[in-house]
Amino acid sequence: MTDFNRHPSSYHHWQLQIDGDIAHLRMNVDPAHPFRPGYELKLNSYDLGVDMELADAIQRLRFEHPEVKVVVLGSAQERAFCAGANIWMLAESSHPFKVNFCKYTNETRLSLEDASQHSGLKSICAVNAACAGGGYELALACDEIHLVDDNNSAVSLPEVPLLGVLPGTGGLTRLVDKRKVRRDRADVFCTMAEGVRGKKAVAWGLVDATWKKSQFAEKVTARARELAAALPTRAPRGVTLPPIHFRRDGDTYAWTHVRLQVEPAARRATLTVHGPVGEQPRDGAGYAAVGASAWALQCWRELDDALLQLRFDHEEVGLIVLQTRGDRQALLQVERDLAANRSHWLCNEILLQMARTLRRFDLMARSSYALVDADACCAGAFLELTLACDRIYALDSDRVQMAIGPLSQGLLPMSHGLSRLQNRFLARPEHAARLAAEMPTSTGAEIDEQGLCTYLLDPVDWDDDVRIALEERVSLSPDALTGMEASLRFGGVENCDSKIFGRLSAWQNWIFTRPNATGDEGALTRYGAPESAKFDWRRT
Amino acid sequence: MTDFNRHPSSYHHWQLQIDGDIAHLRMNVDPAHPFRPGYELKLNSYDLGVDMELADAIQRLRFEHPEVKVVVLGSAQERAFCAGANIWMLAESSHPFKVNFCKYTNETRLSLEDASQHSGLKSICAVNAACAGGGYELALACDEIHLVDDNNSAVSLPEVPLLGVLPGTGGLTRLVDKRKVRRDRADVFCTMAEGVRGKKAVAWGLVDATWKKSQFAEKVTARARELAAALPTRAPRGVTLPPIHFRRDGDTYAWTHVRLQVEPAARRATLTVHGPVGEQPRDGAGYAAVGASAWALQCWRELDDALLQLRFDHEEVGLIVLQTRGDRQALLQVERDLAANRSHWLCNEILLQMARTLRRFDLMARSSYALVDADACCAGAFLELTLACDRIYALDSDRVQMAIGPLSQGLLPMSHGLSRLQNRFLARPEHAARLAAEMPTSTGAEIDEQGLCTYLLDPVDWDDDVRIALEERVSLSPDALTGMEASLRFGGVENCDSKIFGRLSAWQNWIFTRPNATGDEGALTRYGAPESAKFDWRRT
Repeated sequence: MTDFNRHPSSYHHWQLQIDGDIAHLRMNVDPAHPFRPGYELKLNSYDLGVDMELADAIQRLRFEHPEVKVVVLGSAQERAFCAGANIWMLAESSHPFKVNFCKYTNETRLSLEDASQHSGLKSICAVNAACAGGGYELALACDEIHLVDDNNSAVSLPEVPLLGVLPGTGGLTRLVDKRKVRRDRADVFCTMAEGVRGKKAVAWGLVDATWKKSQFAEKVTARARELAAALPTRAPRGVTLPPIHFRRDGDTYAWTHVRLQVEPAARRATLTVHGPVGEQPRDGAGYAAVGASAWALQCWRELDDALLQLRFDHEEVGLIVLQTRGDRQALLQVERDLAANRSHWLCNEILLQMARTLRRFDLMARSSYALVDADACCAGAFLELTLACDRIYALDSDRVQMAIGPLSQGLLPMSHGLSRLQNRFLARPEHAARLAAEMPTSTGAEIDEQGLCTYLLDPVDWDDDVRIALEERVSLSPDALTGMEASLRFGGVENCDSKIFGRLSAWQNWIFTRPNATGDEGALTRYGAPESAKFDWRRT
Repeated sequence: MTDFNRHPSSYHHWQLQIDGDIAHLRMNVDPAHPFRPGYELKLNSYDLGVDMELADAIQRLRFEHPEVKVVVLGSAQERAFCAGANIWMLAESSHPFKVNFCKYTNETRLSLEDASQHSGLKSICAVNAACAGGGYELALACDEIHLVDDNNSAVSLPEVPLLGVLPGTGGLTRLVDKRKVRRDRADVFCTMAEGVRGKKAVAWGLVDATWKKSQFAEKVTARARELAAALPTRAPRGVTLPPIHFRRDGDTYAWTHVRLQVEPAARRATLTVHGPVGEQPRDGAGYAAVGASAWALQCWRELDDALLQLRFDHEEVGLIVLQTRGDRQALLQVERDLAANRSHWLCNEILLQMARTLRRFDLMARSSYALVDADACCAGAFLELTLACDRIYALDSDRVQMAIGPLSQGLLPMSHGLSRLQNRFLARPEHAARLAAEMPTSTGAEIDEQGLCTYLLDPVDWDDDVRIALEERVSLSPDALTGMEASLRFGGVENCDSKIFGRLSAWQNWIFTRPNATGDEGALTRYGAPESAKFDWRRT
């Protein structure tokens, strides 16, 4: 069981300091506190535990500190800004863990970009010393990168020359797609272990500015103040994020609104989400008063936690069976109120949290089937969750309803920018637009007519058909399913985010499994050893 | 040495029949003629040899038969339209061969789509019997798919359930991106070995029409005639494509305009292309009179052949060193004439051939460095080839010139649709547009100022710097370089074509290496064996 709860008061690896509308988040990794025993976190190198604190800090800046307009990411260590993901940790991790670790760190960095784009929380990376690999990938996720000019400190992506793997946290894609670094310069940069520093780093677009060591802190602070002064205040104070707890009873995890029942032998897990119960806030002030206990925030934070538990602690679960429960009207009322009040900072943040959790679900390397039966609460964002599944099994009954809500018109976008209705109905964009605009509630045969289910099952067939479907799915090759789902889930366009998960992660996944990287004589295995790696030179 | 030359008169596996403005291309694979001994090509299953004939047939329809407006792809066998790539061939092939085979078949299918989009040669797939895996992927590459309705014949992608691998020839991407099949239906379709037939195949968008067996031939022919009648005639007669020959002397291959010097121990190959010599046609009639011996066609067909030789016969060559030679003005004159006459079918076809060859170069899983020295002919399409390289080393000398030609303004697009100037200058689209519009010739320092080289080297440093650069490159992990280059070469947007190579191929590449597919107990290895596959169930 992994506890993803963190709090600034007990961070081992970061220092979060709030100074009016500017926050300083300084990396100061404790070498003696690895996430798992067996390696030391030297030179501000990171592992999952370090990144969990970073993810927590970004969440708290969003929700607890809306007064902050600019966060300056820096290092509290003189010798290193960040040396990237810890190599010893990577070398001794299983392949599934490595891939899940990379996915999580990718999502953390995307949440920083999401905060910049949608929350008005800008980020500056203050690179005060050597910045390598995942360290530079963290910098790339910031709005601006400022590099100290001390004739020594460089930014670098040394994974290819030193380790025989790719920068796995979006580095290559952000280099050419986000920062639009010229492809041949990117090629040079990614094959030189020593990296690039000073004016050349600026000229190549690898960083935005470079400052003499004596001026560095002052210049970065001045820039942060300048940025902050130009940004509107989000809110004077935030809401507290309490930890997310679950009770575990055997293989069942129970949160307040979410329940995860793992069946290890069947390699599946039933994920049940519950809609709002009781009175919910109606506007921004109401949400600010109630805080994190409001269903709209609590439920989706819990769901996020459930997905992470599945990823890290139940690697063999191949199929998520989604069940929705609760009162459709109450759920839709919450969504109407959130949509109507989204100019309020907290309603906005809650919607963004829902969207991120849904994207985390889209990106699960597990199959997902939604069961829409007579007890289902298949409305609004729960319908979005249903649409995020690989298949939807609906019961053909008047008691079954599927209701499109006000958030389906683009407020909960997928990684590649499309709404789930647009993505589902690529061939019928006018149908997707009509559903989003008219927000119909469909029942029985209408569900099938509207294209909202994969199968509409007769009640007499339901039990058998569903049982067979679940059994069939978990019998298939888990690798082939992962590749197939990654290809079928995201139709149409791509963007920087989706290229990270679709193109870059797929390559990284491959390279991690290759003997040239992780074999006994591979570059990752032999890093630091006296003998250099031996390669199978055949190009593929 | 692989001979890629094929001719309809000696096809083993296809029948090409021209009937006025309609061509029939019927698959009739000879089981006893595999590309390599060791397996039988039953049920119209294919291997590289079968696909080389298909590629040849498409080329001949483009160049030799411009009178053809519609090609009907069918089968001469009653029991099978096509069973896809031969499984025994795949199971016993090396990983690099499998990947190169998939890439080649992908390019063949893309050439069919390219002919539809740019040459006015439409394609109809007449699926007269079972159509599985790569067979259906071939169908997906056609403009229309007509399926016989005999209560038996289905289209299917059974790779995931039967073999534990992905459809590797664009199937998943074309399903959701080209045909825009709803993602949950695509999911069902790709996990059912038996496939989908009849009206359901039409309703799901898997095929365009289905016809009773008794009417099938008649309906397909009627549709072909209808399509042809609505299309303009390209030309009454074409030009003959003679075979492409090279002389091999040790590790050096010499064509007329192209030379490939392989240095196996150094794991590199020098690829030298020569510009036009002597008088060249000035317009369409001139090209039609001269035919395939014109430099603009001969050189690029030879280059295409050289790239394929490298891919299949020199797997350990990690670096292509590009040299351009010839007369810049003569080359640019050819290009101006082709661009001015591109409404002529043959000039159009020649430009499309250049573009496809350049894309084949972009997609080489090899590093590529261009050397622009005093002897270089770095102009027009040769400059495009230079821009396609991972790095450009230019000599700082007045004798070195780089000249942008009239084809760089979008006539030679990359897989993802951008011109190489747009792709290179993603951060400066106005600069890319200006270069394309003004077509400057740059020399010495101007080359660097215009951003057209990676390094501008002083003559005294040239030899050493280039030598070190080449040696460094071939020392790096070939896998990491392949993934890195695939990520850095294609910035910005993606489309269906680039998603096939970027997202789908990367996943396929990974899955092919996994024990779940190709291990002793993997699904591909155990296909047809009494014992079923054993999987490592951990999802990644």
